[in-house]
Amino acid sequence: MGIVVQKYGGSSVADAAGIKRVAQRIVATKKAGNDVVVVVSAMGDTTDELIDLANEVSPLPPARELDMLLTAGERISMAVLAMAIQNLGQEARSFTGSQAGVITDAEHGRAKIIDVTPGRIQAALADGAVAIVAGFQGVSQTTKDITTLGRGGSDTTAVALAVAIDAEVCEIYSDVDGIFTADPRVEPRARKVPRISYEETLEMAAQGAKILHLRCVEYARRYDMPIHVRSSFSQKEGTWVVRAEDVSAGGAQGTEEAGSTMEAAIITGVAHDSSQAKITIVGVPDKPGEAAAIFRTVADAQINIDMIVQNISAAATGRTDISFTLPRGEGQTAMAALAGMQDQVGYESLQYDDSVGKVSVVGAGMSTSPGISARFFEALSEAGVNIQMISTSEIRVSVVVTEAQVVQAVNAAHAVFDLGSDEIEAVVYGGTGR
Amino acid sequence: MGIVVQKYGGSSVADAAGIKRVAQRIVATKKAGNDVVVVVSAMGDTTDELIDLANEVSPLPPARELDMLLTAGERISMAVLAMAIQNLGQEARSFTGSQAGVITDAEHGRAKIIDVTPGRIQAALADGAVAIVAGFQGVSQTTKDITTLGRGGSDTTAVALAVAIDAEVCEIYSDVDGIFTADPRVEPRARKVPRISYEETLEMAAQGAKILHLRCVEYARRYDMPIHVRSSFSQKEGTWVVRAEDVSAGGAQGTEEAGSTMEAAIITGVAHDSSQAKITIVGVPDKPGEAAAIFRTVADAQINIDMIVQNISAAATGRTDISFTLPRGEGQTAMAALAGMQDQVGYESLQYDDSVGKVSVVGAGMSTSPGISARFFEALSEAGVNIQMISTSEIRVSVVVTEAQVVQAVNAAHAVFDLGSDEIEAVVYGGTGR
Repeated sequence: MGIVVQKYGGSSVADAAGIKRVAQRIVATKKAGNDVVVVVSAMGDTTDELIDLANEVSPLPPARELDMLLTAGERISMAVLAMAIQNLGQEARSFTGSQAGVITDAEHGRAKIIDVTPGRIQAALADGAVAIVAGFQGVSQTTKDITTLGRGGSDTTAVALAVAIDAEVCEIYSDVDGIFTADPRVEPRARKVPRISYEETLEMAAQGAKILHLRCVEYARRYDMPIHVRSSFSQKEGTWVVRAEDVSAGGAQGTEEAGSTMEAAIITGVAHDSSQAKITIVGVPDKPGEAAAIFRTVADAQINIDMIVQNISAAATGRTDISFTLPRGEGQTAMAALAGMQDQVGYESLQYDDSVGKVSVVGAGMSTSPGISARFFEALSEAGVNIQMISTSEIRVSVVVTEAQVVQAVNAAHAVFDLGSDEIEAVVYGGTGR
Repeated sequence: MGIVVQKYGGSSVADAAGIKRVAQRIVATKKAGNDVVVVVSAMGDTTDELIDLANEVSPLPPARELDMLLTAGERISMAVLAMAIQNLGQEARSFTGSQAGVITDAEHGRAKIIDVTPGRIQAALADGAVAIVAGFQGVSQTTKDITTLGRGGSDTTAVALAVAIDAEVCEIYSDVDGIFTADPRVEPRARKVPRISYEETLEMAAQGAKILHLRCVEYARRYDMPIHVRSSFSQKEGTWVVRAEDVSAGGAQGTEEAGSTMEAAIITGVAHDSSQAKITIVGVPDKPGEAAAIFRTVADAQINIDMIVQNISAAATGRTDISFTLPRGEGQTAMAALAGMQDQVGYESLQYDDSVGKVSVVGAGMSTSPGISARFFEALSEAGVNIQMISTSEIRVSVVVTEAQVVQAVNAAHAVFDLGSDEIEAVVYGGTGR
């Protein structure tokens, strides 16, 4: 066998009992003949508790020190996990991001990995030890300060290490059994997907599915590192994230055990995001540069815009309406920034709707199967769901609907594309890790 | 002004409020024109909580991983302290022991500092920042693993850094106002000592006074670094630990502000230790090598022996009794080790008394003042205290008494050497830090 990288999220190592359970799984993987590198997140709510502590002494904690503080979380979990593994008779050594050679830029709180120099990890493996690495953290190449990678950072650490040490697979453990055709909490008939392409996973993640983070999947796609998403609470096979050509082939990367789908489904899954808001700028003068000025203002306010729709202008008035969606938490900031430029742009008014949601169907087969949008919209219509905005990519169709109708829309889409299983197989165990 | 090193123990930074209070003191020191380096312990009970966590997964946590785990404690306190200082408008940067250049041997859990390379600390000071350094920890020169220095480690870090950056003084903050003529909880008339020599401090510490740890004082004496022991809860001048010649002179090291004692007292203070046990080996054959064999056995069991008394052997039997004291927590281990060698040594029996204490009078003036022991023993006799064992050094006389009479013995010694003040000035705020 070869090298296996396993990443365990905070919910898998929430307490001593969880750490012991994970330790047994790691030792079993090692005993099966693999070299094992483990990337671990902070225990349970540790990170949130540390942020609370920081806020007790500083309303806006300086980024360098916040990174120093938060990295204590993984330091605790990795050391305790190494102890638990050694208590089972298996040598194990923990390493900080810096010790593991995770070299980043100096952007505290959202650092990018620019190099991985895993010499100490490889030495530990050569000694027969399991290497435990702190997720989410690295060291700046220029300042030598400790950095953190931001949300999803531990997943990214795992994939980057897997690439650097030429692992066979990067296993990402959480408290759900894999990637599902829809969120099992919303769609009871959701079915686990045995294999999915990097591209579909990226679209699912971008559209609100919470299994994997964008950066981790992008990294894996760039270096063609297979990811196996699975639950640390069961022994079930999870979901393999692989190259598009390996999805329908069902071969390669040891996926033969999973019942292989002989024919690729057109639609892989339904993603939804219920935390969106919509801003409409009414009566914008229809002349060049107006939209650019508006979105420059919003970008300068550090707002992440998602979908944008501009109506055709009414010939009589020479004015148009522009709508866009954004994360609800950023709504007030965006409204304030836009209000400040009313005189400059000369629009008529602003409308804010903080109860919208987005529902997307994603599938690599879509690009060669006409009529997907039509079937999706008909299903929504039959379910009584009103569409407010539409956007599409090559392998995705998204609609914005009122928040109250998000679940109906997910269920309708799931049914019309025949994604459901006959029995309920999803088990969701709790929150998700970092 | 020059460079000041300040060390704050766990009780001074037990919570966010404590950290803010300490931050204000640090900023005031900086504003007074000093360059400031701060060494900080883990917050409150953090270290004990981390040890509990380790014991939940492993009955005997491996030392390398325990060090990795425990160093998370200082990482948290130093980052939060740096945030609190920056929130007051003063630039501050936190550094791990490794980043601060604290190089140690590879003895996990009790590493010795072998070098300090404070380049990053000096760079931070040159930038006008306060440098915050994690106490208690370093990095092994050979293995590059994280190490801890053991009990009293943060004090040692502070003195070692002060020496390495040529500081004017090393201030050690805790929750008591300085070094007292006796423990204020036992002797209400205990008086704060304005100045004390390194040698007297070592004797006081070795005999149970809990203000400073032996290693820290030894390091300060070797490099002649003045230590100012004071409380982080008040602005009062504390106790200066300096060279013997600077104690009576009252000069040097900025101690002029303190009311200088024009004449050195003969006795500086009374130390006590109520956590002792006594073992007596009855009927040891009085021939060469017996005592050596006994204490080799005890040493091999990692027992720290304190005082040893051997009676003159009775001519009739050719046998003698040997008694020694040791920390109470190690009593059972020692008894087991000794019981295992009864046949080899041929002693008659073992006696174990786990309710003894030690009371010591310490003073540099003792070596030139005859009759100190006699006055001490007379005072004990008048107080009805029975002496079980006696040991002396050049500047110390210690007696072992029954634990129930320790307080009476301290009070009697304090009175006979006229150490008390007319009013109660000691304030004790809580537990002590690491």
